[in-house]
Amino acid sequence: MHNESRLIRLKTIEGHLKGITRMVEEDAYCIDVIRQIQAVEAALSKVSAQILEEHLNSCVITAIRGDSQAERERVLKEISEVFAMSGKM
Amino acid sequence: MHNESRLIRLKTIEGHLKGITRMVEEDAYCIDVIRQIQAVEAALSKVSAQILEEHLNSCVITAIRGDSQAERERVLKEISEVFAMSGKM
Amino acid sequence: MHNESRLIRLKTIEGHLKGITRMVEEDAYCIDVIRQIQAVEAALSKVSAQILEEHLNSCVITAIRGDSQAERERVLKEISEVFAMSGKM
Amino acid sequence: MHNESRLIRLKTIEGHLKGITRMVEEDAYCIDVIRQIQAVEAALSKVSAQILEEHLNSCVITAIRGDSQAERERVLKEISEVFAMSGKM
Repeated sequence: MHNESRLIRLKTIEGHLKGITRMVEEDAYCIDVIRQIQAVEAALSKVSAQILEEHLNSCVITAIRGDSQAERERVLKEISEVFAMSGKM
Repeated sequence: MHNESRLIRLKTIEGHLKGITRMVEEDAYCIDVIRQIQAVEAALSKVSAQILEEHLNSCVITAIRGDSQAERERVLKEISEVFAMSGKM
Repeated sequence: MHNESRLIRLKTIEGHLKGITRMVEEDAYCIDVIRQIQAVEAALSKVSAQILEEHLNSCVITAIRGDSQAERERVLKEISEVFAMSGKM
Repeated sequence: MHNESRLIRLKTIEGHLKGITRMVEEDAYCIDVIRQIQAVEAALSKVSAQILEEHLNSCVITAIRGDSQAERERVLKEISEVFAMSGKM
């Protein structure tokens, strides 16, 4: 169900990106292309945030409440990593 | 010619994004999806930077060396705007 | 102890930022100032990531393993929010 | 004059950052610290954008309207570089 909403967003972004490719093929004005690319990046950040939220509320809760410390450490390390990466972009 | 290189990059990113949609359809692990989305965002930032560089070396030079002050102000304002936007993402 | 390392980093960044103010006072070249500001932003992102990592390994584990669902939801919501915000910058 | 406005902003940010250091010294809640760091990063991006705008309207115009191609290329390359860097953060 959650999946459905992500898929719709991702397919919308795919369409948006195809539109940008078409703009470049038709020699659109550079700044217009850059603005559209920035819009796609913003949309992707939103999907990422949505996916992370769902991940926290499912896998992460399960792992942290579970008995395996290794598993717990793994899921927390992953979140640290994607957060650190988002700061580099 | 420059156009060609941008197009190839954009089509590669389209392919990458389609792969991500497929991952979501096949219920891939959330963190793997987020990492792929971050890779696409980084690739888009690179295309943007490349397009801006070419824009500076063509339209911007022409406008600034031209006689119209309005045109000059317009191109510079656009660059300020895309830079300001990039700081918000 | 963790605190100590964050404090040292933050004080280093304070010193860096004071250096930038001095550059502006002495009319340094704009691009050099911008580069230094970008370096400070990168350093701040690193401290943020470090703080989040420690938060995950302390408060978040405690909350999720605890009995209060409200508390659990609160800590997860906060992480979603700071991640979403980092995508906007 | 422009300088004055940048200096005021930078000094305000210095004060903000000192406040964050104090929060860490007093063991403030991690997420509150991260949010304040994100606010400082946003403020720094704004100063950067302001400095770039002024740079475009002074040095860049002078260089591009000037006779030295090397100088022209230098200023444009610098703008590409700070833009590319901003995409990595």
